[in-house]
Amino acid sequence: MDLSPLQRARYEYQPKLPAILREAIDQVVPVKGEVTQSSTHQEQIKALFPNTYGLNKISFEKGNNEDIKKKINVGVILSGGQAPGGHNVISGLFDALKKANPESKLYGFKGGPSGIIEDNTMEITADYLASFRNTGGFDIIGSGRTKLETIEQFELAKNTCQKHDISAVVIIGGDDSNTNAAVLAEYFLQQKANIQVIGCPKTIDGDLKNDAIEISFGFDTATKTYSELIGNIERDANSAKKYWHFIKVMGRSASHIALECALETQPNVCLISEEIEENKTSLSGVVDYISTIIANRGNKGLNFGVIIIPEGLVEFIPEVKALIDELNDLLAKKAEDYSKFTKTEDQINFILNNVSLESKEVFSILPSSIQMQLLMDRDPHGNVQVSRIETDKLLIEMVSKKLEVMKKEGSYTGKFSAQNHFFGYEGRCAFPSNFDADYCYSLGFNAFMLIASGLSGYLSSVKNLSAPASQWVAGGIPITMMMNMEQRHGEQKPVIKKALVELDGKPFNYFKAHRDQWAIDTCFTFPGAIQYYGPESVCDLTTRTLALEQEK
Amino acid sequence: MDLSPLQRARYEYQPKLPAILREAIDQVVPVKGEVTQSSTHQEQIKALFPNTYGLNKISFEKGNNEDIKKKINVGVILSGGQAPGGHNVISGLFDALKKANPESKLYGFKGGPSGIIEDNTMEITADYLASFRNTGGFDIIGSGRTKLETIEQFELAKNTCQKHDISAVVIIGGDDSNTNAAVLAEYFLQQKANIQVIGCPKTIDGDLKNDAIEISFGFDTATKTYSELIGNIERDANSAKKYWHFIKVMGRSASHIALECALETQPNVCLISEEIEENKTSLSGVVDYISTIIANRGNKGLNFGVIIIPEGLVEFIPEVKALIDELNDLLAKKAEDYSKFTKTEDQINFILNNVSLESKEVFSILPSSIQMQLLMDRDPHGNVQVSRIETDKLLIEMVSKKLEVMKKEGSYTGKFSAQNHFFGYEGRCAFPSNFDADYCYSLGFNAFMLIASGLSGYLSSVKNLSAPASQWVAGGIPITMMMNMEQRHGEQKPVIKKALVELDGKPFNYFKAHRDQWAIDTCFTFPGAIQYYGPESVCDLTTRTLALEQEK
Repeated sequence: MDLSPLQRARYEYQPKLPAILREAIDQVVPVKGEVTQSSTHQEQIKALFPNTYGLNKISFEKGNNEDIKKKINVGVILSGGQAPGGHNVISGLFDALKKANPESKLYGFKGGPSGIIEDNTMEITADYLASFRNTGGFDIIGSGRTKLETIEQFELAKNTCQKHDISAVVIIGGDDSNTNAAVLAEYFLQQKANIQVIGCPKTIDGDLKNDAIEISFGFDTATKTYSELIGNIERDANSAKKYWHFIKVMGRSASHIALECALETQPNVCLISEEIEENKTSLSGVVDYISTIIANRGNKGLNFGVIIIPEGLVEFIPEVKALIDELNDLLAKKAEDYSKFTKTEDQINFILNNVSLESKEVFSILPSSIQMQLLMDRDPHGNVQVSRIETDKLLIEMVSKKLEVMKKEGSYTGKFSAQNHFFGYEGRCAFPSNFDADYCYSLGFNAFMLIASGLSGYLSSVKNLSAPASQWVAGGIPITMMMNMEQRHGEQKPVIKKALVELDGKPFNYFKAHRDQWAIDTCFTFPGAIQYYGPESVCDLTTRTLALEQEK
Repeated sequence: MDLSPLQRARYEYQPKLPAILREAIDQVVPVKGEVTQSSTHQEQIKALFPNTYGLNKISFEKGNNEDIKKKINVGVILSGGQAPGGHNVISGLFDALKKANPESKLYGFKGGPSGIIEDNTMEITADYLASFRNTGGFDIIGSGRTKLETIEQFELAKNTCQKHDISAVVIIGGDDSNTNAAVLAEYFLQQKANIQVIGCPKTIDGDLKNDAIEISFGFDTATKTYSELIGNIERDANSAKKYWHFIKVMGRSASHIALECALETQPNVCLISEEIEENKTSLSGVVDYISTIIANRGNKGLNFGVIIIPEGLVEFIPEVKALIDELNDLLAKKAEDYSKFTKTEDQINFILNNVSLESKEVFSILPSSIQMQLLMDRDPHGNVQVSRIETDKLLIEMVSKKLEVMKKEGSYTGKFSAQNHFFGYEGRCAFPSNFDADYCYSLGFNAFMLIASGLSGYLSSVKNLSAPASQWVAGGIPITMMMNMEQRHGEQKPVIKKALVELDGKPFNYFKAHRDQWAIDTCFTFPGAIQYYGPESVCDLTTRTLALEQEK
């Protein structure tokens, strides 16, 4: 395979570590910190995790540590969607493992969690790893979305580990995967299987975040890539002065990506799903909000702009969510009746005659192309595929109609022409920024330190991330500490709480304080492409979200 | 307005010039080279351009040049679609002008060619320019698509120039704009208006290219930006192993962008419009070609891949082009009859009953969403808006159907799931690569040298571009040299010939020699984001297309 010049150059990059992890590896010892507990549901979670609840926080300090040189085999899993930096977690883990004992081995379970169940296992050697250092993607061992949840799976995982003499597994994943890591850790301890489990916080969505996790890896690089593109489009909009660009960005459950991109690029509009849900804004309320801004600019002769839309938006608009729920329910219960209709008109009439009055109204105002998407793009369980709904096009059509009305009323004198974009896959596998390269390498290195300390059910934690890497603080956090009980598929389950955009948090407040000006004026900022070389101010800064959160 | 860290840093960048332009500006003199002629239609073009035909090529050498210090006012126009580097053409022009005489002034005509007609004129000062150096976009003075073609427009332009004592105009544009620059230059000479006109070769499409122009500016940066994204998507495809990504890239008339991106990223499929036209490949031929590759990979268990599609593809497929022409004709002639139908079915039946048998067949096999696009998205003249046709989705739907058939026949055993993307606006206003920053600055600087040499109807030319900038060769080429006569709107017109992808050229041949392997194997290359700092091998290389063309 041919290599790009950047790929060649990135192989040479040496990621930065927190100061304590730069010491000789046998001169670092774990220190027990405070005893932890979950913030809610303490009794329930304690009962479910007798062996891994209430453990101490862990940090590291200088000290003699001969034990670390013990030969050990470790397995690693990449779980779920790609995020830039996964390869560096594995690099850091590998380098620490081999520093401690060159005879220790690192195994990769291929294709995600199914790899450990099906024993799809490969040894990760120095040579093999060399071609993945500081690169994006999860292609080193592949990823997958199988969930490790059942006792049967746990037993198969145990067998695989025992077969390869693996005594620790590192699971690199999002909130669900780390929840499952905690359950697996607990199971192995209960079974006295002698297999430790350590989690690493991954997700470009940024919704795995709490007191112990300042940022999930990949969020920095992905949002920088989207912001590069949004900035380029802003510049184009401001040069051509004739298009409104509606840009949908990834983020189903939370709008961290949209918010971070807005902080980086200062668009005219950025919708935040959490705010729309909080305010119970209706679909026509959203359309009115956008239309008013477009009209205000248009009336000043500014017939262009940029609008950022979070992918999951429609699920946060109360009456659209109700419609989708009703559709799912209706088409599940009356699948047979519905399947008799072949003409679109008949299908639509069937829907209109069988949903509530509110949902009928919502469905009726949707553009026909979106009605079709709701009816036709269904997943194998018959559910509406929300991620396939072209929210960007939906809003363009509805805003366009609204502006026509406003034009007739005389409240809008501009011209409206729109382009739509969706950015998701474009950023999930970018070469990790220096921040993500360093952070991930540190997370992986640190994961080994937790393993070598005999811990299980911990999450690799690296904090103080808005400071230079040398001042980062490495340690471990019991995963149970981040849990609460939530209703999942009709059952109360212990899960890591998803971090939504906090409407009283500093990043949102900064946005809120500026958005009215960004709306009417042209305040675009152009971040440009991620830089890996050159001035530190250009190459090593992490997100605006983190900077604002950690602002003193 | 807030500035991004990269924007701040880019202000400090000092673009590189060819060696001769680094001399003291009064120590450089023009040298006449060979007399030129157009490659075809010599007599006709000579007759149309009595004052600007058959001029000499110009280069520069060391020599005493007191004349250059004369005070002079120059105007500049950005014409047509944005391309990275436009701001640097203006910077180079400004710096040379002020070096020669600090009292000389540079004026910008705002909003494209209409600015000179309507006297929408502003002085570009050092302070104002400072915030645009080495940045993308055309927002310094804006751009527009008005064509400078009529005597009336020329007279208005003359008045504007005389009002501001402007004696030279630099037009930064594509093939049409430079054609018009030549006509304007000729007109001003005929009128003895004492206004020189110099052109600069801009277009991300790469189709303004010939013996005198090795590359149009912006092509390098735009294709690098698209290639960054395509590489990221390839990495995602290879990590998740579950999607085929259909990626449409800009390029209506020529497939240079698609080809360059393919050379940079080695996708499984890249369609080249010129080849499809040459081979008279049918739509089902294109679908079969793609489906076969998907099936071959799927049968090996590789249910993922990346396909690059040039934006203008459908116009190069003979029977689709015929259908579009027929539709335009039919809906123009029978607009009234057609407008009576409100139901889609009736509209479609009307079309089917009124087009030729061949077009009826083509229309019938199109997915209904594309049929709708053909019927509904029409420009103000009633024409089908080809650029709005979602070719990526068209191919996904048709390939999907073909694969279902192959599955039933037993020749395909894989799974097919697809994502579509369109990259255009994402790259037109990126921060110019070092290559484009240097090249554009040199083009602008050089444009002033041509003005100072008293020339008109010339294109600013900088050659030997695959060598380091110090070895670049600056000079001027009479625009008439690049012309031929072509049928435009029913008339024979002198125009600069559009450069299509040459099917016997080195870049296409390289692609052709490798594409079968790229199709079946996974040979993805990941270029990553444009780098402005760091190793020269990463930051200063220009396109693969140019490297192959200039390969010894």
